[in-house]
Amino acid sequence: MDYLHFIVKEIHTVIAATTDDKGFPVTCAIDMMDADESGLYFLTAKGKGFYDRLKRYGYIALTGIKGEDTMSCAAVSVRGKVCELGEAHLPRLFEKNPYMNEIYPTEESRRALTVFGLYEGSGEWFDLSIKPIERASFTIGQPEAKQEGYFITNDCIGCRTCETVCPQACIDFTTTPAVIEQMHCLHCGNCKSVCPQNAVVRRG
Amino acid sequence: MDYLHFIVKEIHTVIAATTDDKGFPVTCAIDMMDADESGLYFLTAKGKGFYDRLKRYGYIALTGIKGEDTMSCAAVSVRGKVCELGEAHLPRLFEKNPYMNEIYPTEESRRALTVFGLYEGSGEWFDLSIKPIERASFTIGQPEAKQEGYFITNDCIGCRTCETVCPQACIDFTTTPAVIEQMHCLHCGNCKSVCPQNAVVRRG
Repeated sequence: MDYLHFIVKEIHTVIAATTDDKGFPVTCAIDMMDADESGLYFLTAKGKGFYDRLKRYGYIALTGIKGEDTMSCAAVSVRGKVCELGEAHLPRLFEKNPYMNEIYPTEESRRALTVFGLYEGSGEWFDLSIKPIERASFTIGQPEAKQEGYFITNDCIGCRTCETVCPQACIDFTTTPAVIEQMHCLHCGNCKSVCPQNAVVRRG
Repeated sequence: MDYLHFIVKEIHTVIAATTDDKGFPVTCAIDMMDADESGLYFLTAKGKGFYDRLKRYGYIALTGIKGEDTMSCAAVSVRGKVCELGEAHLPRLFEKNPYMNEIYPTEESRRALTVFGLYEGSGEWFDLSIKPIERASFTIGQPEAKQEGYFITNDCIGCRTCETVCPQACIDFTTTPAVIEQMHCLHCGNCKSVCPQNAVVRRG
């Protein structure tokens, strides 16, 4: 699945987080206007605090959701490094997103706009619209995704205590050690909290 | 307007940002499940990285949007302090949000859940569905909102240079100094960048 094009075409308006000069997170709504093999593209105005924070730290985290309610939505999150690409990319983004002409109608009104690219990072796809839920990881501009979540070690004796507390019923006991189906796991940690063998570890 | 109840009832699923142990922002989708005069309430599982980050820093930023596309949406952002209220609040949140019973169907599966409250902070309302756009500030549990944005000082001579670059046409020239209509301002900074008198200042 092409997650970046899904963000641009199906979600489009995401919520982005940066950090302020005290290290606290700040969020705002921002449109993802284009994607290619190099990453994700968006624009902002140089007069905004968002611009200052992007320039200072060169980092962004974002999540977008597709769907109206919690039980039937999919979410994509991406976090990673951004760099300012400048106004040379503006015509392409305006052409692909013609509604921007309504917000910034004249050449004069666009003078403060500039384009950023998210060129290196990792992302996660999370689909609550199917049962059990599904999740998957992906990367932008770097070789492998960091493994995150709960995993069962060789200390497992197959006692199935964890089965009783798993809200997703996503632990496979056909082998010992049992195996957590990562794509369906909510990361709630119930399995780890009840395992009498301390056989469940958390990574990431 | 009751912004917190708007978040809970009209937006519900927001994107929340916390910071990781290196200070980088992390975002995730989270449901705002209740609001009262003391703040906003949501739940999470103790096994999630989100829980660790909330406990470590006691701070969250979030933005939610209502509406499908950029030109017709309203966004509400809130940032501030959170504290863990614990499982005593779970029955109320499950009662008000019955779909949670599908995600965590049994008492056993809820054992890792806990409730947080956002009890002190500030927020901003941003409505792109009307022209010119509207914005407003509000607070939770503290007396006054910080003033942010662009303001024209007494150095203004009323030359109207800024009028030509303002995408919102939201500068009032009936007095000198001219006045930026804060509720309609995009914070793009064009006015400041062109003012020959350096009469535009940025606060916040």
